[in-house]
This record gives sequence, structure tokens and C-alpha cells, in this order.
Amino acid sequence: MINRLIEKIQKTNAPIVVGLDPMLKYVPEHIKKAAFAEFGETLEGAAEAIWQYNKGIVDAIYDLVPAVKPQIAMYEQFGIPGLVAFKKTVDYCKEKGLVVIGDVKRGDIGSTSEAYAVGHLGKVSVGSNAFYGLNEDFATVNPYLGSDGINPFIKVCKEEKKGIFVLVKTSNPSSGEFQDRLVDGRPLYEIVGEQVASWGAECMGDSYSYVGAVVGATYPEQGKVLRKIMPKTFILVPGYGAQGGKGADLVHFFNEDGLGAIINSSRGIIAAYQQEKYASFGEQGYADASRAAVIDMREDIAQALGK
Amino acid sequence: MINRLIEKIQKTNAPIVVGLDPMLKYVPEHIKKAAFAEFGETLEGAAEAIWQYNKGIVDAIYDLVPAVKPQIAMYEQFGIPGLVAFKKTVDYCKEKGLVVIGDVKRGDIGSTSEAYAVGHLGKVSVGSNAFYGLNEDFATVNPYLGSDGINPFIKVCKEEKKGIFVLVKTSNPSSGEFQDRLVDGRPLYEIVGEQVASWGAECMGDSYSYVGAVVGATYPEQGKVLRKIMPKTFILVPGYGAQGGKGADLVHFFNEDGLGAIINSSRGIIAAYQQEKYASFGEQGYADASRAAVIDMREDIAQALGK
Repeated sequence: MINRLIEKIQKTNAPIVVGLDPMLKYVPEHIKKAAFAEFGETLEGAAEAIWQYNKGIVDAIYDLVPAVKPQIAMYEQFGIPGLVAFKKTVDYCKEKGLVVIGDVKRGDIGSTSEAYAVGHLGKVSVGSNAFYGLNEDFATVNPYLGSDGINPFIKVCKEEKKGIFVLVKTSNPSSGEFQDRLVDGRPLYEIVGEQVASWGAECMGDSYSYVGAVVGATYPEQGKVLRKIMPKTFILVPGYGAQGGKGADLVHFFNEDGLGAIINSSRGIIAAYQQEKYASFGEQGYADASRAAVIDMREDIAQALGK
Repeated sequence: MINRLIEKIQKTNAPIVVGLDPMLKYVPEHIKKAAFAEFGETLEGAAEAIWQYNKGIVDAIYDLVPAVKPQIAMYEQFGIPGLVAFKKTVDYCKEKGLVVIGDVKRGDIGSTSEAYAVGHLGKVSVGSNAFYGLNEDFATVNPYLGSDGINPFIKVCKEEKKGIFVLVKTSNPSSGEFQDRLVDGRPLYEIVGEQVASWGAECMGDSYSYVGAVVGATYPEQGKVLRKIMPKTFILVPGYGAQGGKGADLVHFFNEDGLGAIINSSRGIIAAYQQEKYASFGEQGYADASRAAVIDMREDIAQALGK
């Protein structure tokens, strides 16, 4: 799957992943109205609204980008109906040929981590049958529990040719509270980064590993160091746009081959129509506004990379 | 909810939480047969089997213990039908008067962590209505992202009088990979423990905080240190039984008031009938075997605590 992701990045010339993190306040009134008319102001109504909203965006951008990253929390908040909308979104994006990165930040130990790996990336056995559960292509994973938490994911990734992105240095302001603590004079995120490179060495695609890393765009200097520590690791970079990361901050997340990173933008794209810059699209044109925002982001990154 | 948990521990004289972590290999044949007859060897069939299995156990133990801890990964592996079984299990346990600790190990940042907090502990707004999503009483939370990840949970805990248990030192063999790294000469888990105590200080119940910690029974020495660092923090202790933790290891997780810790056992109780000790109950008597295992565990802990 890492090979396919890279191929699609090269084809679209867009190292961009669109974060499908719907909140009801982003969803245009006409979509909410139709959903609530059918299902009431209920969890089912909310789930229908975010699904229709997602579908409109995906239809408008699927030819421009290689991948999407639905954030499962935004669906989980609506309980079971929300999770059904998550699954519909994953399936629809795959039908459209997009690589789907499940932003699930799961992490546990032993058989429990295996259950998460199976549920999100692999197949579960039921009697003599086997079924995919949520069936994303990649999942994000939390490293705090160590190798016992990661190895079950790696096992499933090998079987399914899928991948993970392990949290190394997250984009948020307080990420340093633990991640920056000095261990033998070096910040913890470097130690985690080394471990990610080591986990990744055992499951290589053609040029990059199936085990990737998450490093926030808001920490460009740290990104530069981590790029060197993990040369064969693909980096998923959140924090561009709404969180403050700029095109120029991204340069050092990439390798000299022009690859090695994929930049996420969520509300900057999916709620573009709410920004002044794209306001002329209006609520009805929200999906076209998202398309325009993707094109601008592609340009911003290309300029930064001197392409 | 921490007050209620403590009250129930005192009433049952059992600082025990039963981990409802069903795997199909634990489920007796007669339950699987009935579920597969109705739904086929499908995700729905698996979900029905684990739900019926859980129900039998809960009916057999609900009067003996204060709390249960369903591990969501074991349900998530069966996709949406599995998550429906999780929700049914949570609801049923609450009907039976049990405190429900959702072992979900979620953790993200800002609005995303808020969505998890709302989805698991709080209410989400839809138009002019508000709904509980999964509605557990407590959730386990991963601290790797720092305060940005934890504060949204604390906010919801305050509103709902619910609680969280933050991972500090997990029970697995490789937990030391990052958690034991020395920061200024002290292991990272101590730094996290201090932070947990500090987060907890702002939302106190009568004698303990709504913000608890997870510390594995397999690390009794570390538990002793953490008990002192976090005097007002309730500790959820996994790793007893199947993972190797013994009654005698548990003493230092408790405070002098005899409180401060709740010990989890999962397969040691829910799959007791598969152990030689409880084999005489047979598959048909699996729930009674679980009851017997709870009684033995209560005795083991009471002896260790010199009660």
C-alpha cells in the first residue's frame, strides 16, 4: 500500500491527504436540513448529514489527491450511527480509488492490539469465514506502550500489504510535555523516531517502509532532524493550514527524491467555503470550494519544494 | 462517579473490575452454535455470540463486583456489528448497576479529543437535541499527546461527573521501551504520574480524583513509587492473573485507607471454565465458573491486604 500511495502521489503531483473530519458546524444548512427531515435531529440525522457532506467533498476532489484521512473521533462522537457513517465514508473513498488513512490513533498490547489491527486493517475469522471490519488502508498508531503495541499491527500490515503511521512528534502546542523530555540528552521523540525506523526496516516497500511516522508541520526543525533519523520512513504531516503550518515549513519533511512526506489538511479544505478567501462559492458550492482549496494547497507545496 | 465507584467497592468488599474482553475462542460452543444458526458465520453472528456470552457472565457476577471494563478493541475487530455488541454490553451493565470503565485508550488533540470525550462520556449536540453516544462511566486515555489531549476529557468529566484513567505504566513486557526512559534521572512514567496528579487536583471527588491512572500489576515496585507520587489518584491495575500479577504484588497499589486501587482481571474470570481449576463447571457452566473465579480473586486480594 505504501507503493500505491507513492504512485498516486506521483501521478497527482500532490503529496496531500484530505482530512475528512466533519463537524456539524461545517456542514451546509441545506444538507443538514435534508438529513434532519429524513431522520430527525437525532444521531442518525447527524450521521446522514456528515456522510452526505463527505460524499460531496470526495466527489469534488478524488481526482486531485492520492488519499483521504477520516478522523474516527469525529464519527465516534455520534455513537453507532456515526461509526456507520465512518464505514460508509471509508468504503466510498476506496471505490473512488483513494488511499484511506484511518486516523484512529489506536494502541494497546498483545491480543488487544492485534484486535485493533485486525479490525482496522485486516480480516477477522468467524467460524470458517473471514471478514474485513472497518478496512482502512493505513491506520495511525500510538507508541506509548512500546513494541508489544506495534508488532501486532506490523504482522497484519505484512499479511495485507497495508501500513501504519506511528505518532512521533504531534502537531499540538503541548506535544512537548512528554515527547520533548530529554532522555540521555536527546528528546524522547528522537528515541521514538529511531524505534519507528527500526520497526520499519523489517517491512519495506520498494523505496519506503510500510511503517510511517506522524510529525507535525508546526515543528519544522524537529521534522528536519527526524527526516534524517528515519530516512526510509514516510511521514504523515498534520498541522498545515488551520493549525498554523505553512508551505515553507514543509521542505525538510521531504527527502531529496521529492518524496517521503504527505501533508494533511482537514478543515482548511473541507470547510474552505467558510473562509473569506472561498466565501464566493457559498454554502451550495462548498464542495467546489474544497476543490479550489486543494488546488491552492498543491500550488503552495509545489512552490515551497521549488517545483 | 469516582465516589460511586468507591461506594460500590466498599459495599462489595471487592476492589475488582471484570474485564469483558471477549474472544470467540472463549465463547462456549452452545452459544456460538445458537448465534451462527440465527445470523450465520458472519460479523453479526460473532457479535451476537460475544453479546450473549457477556450477558451470561454479567448475570452471574453483577452482585459481587463494583465494575466491569469492556475492552473496545475486542468488539471493534468485528466492525460495526461488534461495536453494536459493545454498546449493548455497556447499556446492559449499567442497567445491572455496574460502573462501566470503557477501555478505549483514546487520545488525540483539541477538538478531536473533545469528540472522543463526548462520544464516550458525554453528550453530543444535534440541532436542539443532545445525545449520549457510547455512554461509559469512565474511559482509559493515552497521555502521549500531553495536556491538549487530556483537558477536553477533564472538561466532559466535570460536566458529567464521570472519570478517566490515564495510562502511566502499562502491564506489558515492553512498556519500559519508552515509559522507563530516564528524564533528568527519573523514569518517564514518574513524570507522567506527576502530571496525572496535577490534572487530577482540579477535579476531586470526596476523597479521590476523577482523574485516575493505569499502572500494571506486573510492576509492583513501580506501583509503590507511583502510589506515593499520586496519593489522591485512583489506580486501575491490569495484569493480575493471566498476565502474571499476584495478590501479594498488589499491596502497595493501595493507600492506608484500604482504597485507591481497583484490580482488573479479564480472561482469568471470563474464561475461567477453560482453566483446570474450574474445568468441572464445563462449558454450560461457564458463567458459574466466572462467579467462582471472582470469589477466589476477592479472597486472594483480601488475604494480600490482610483483611
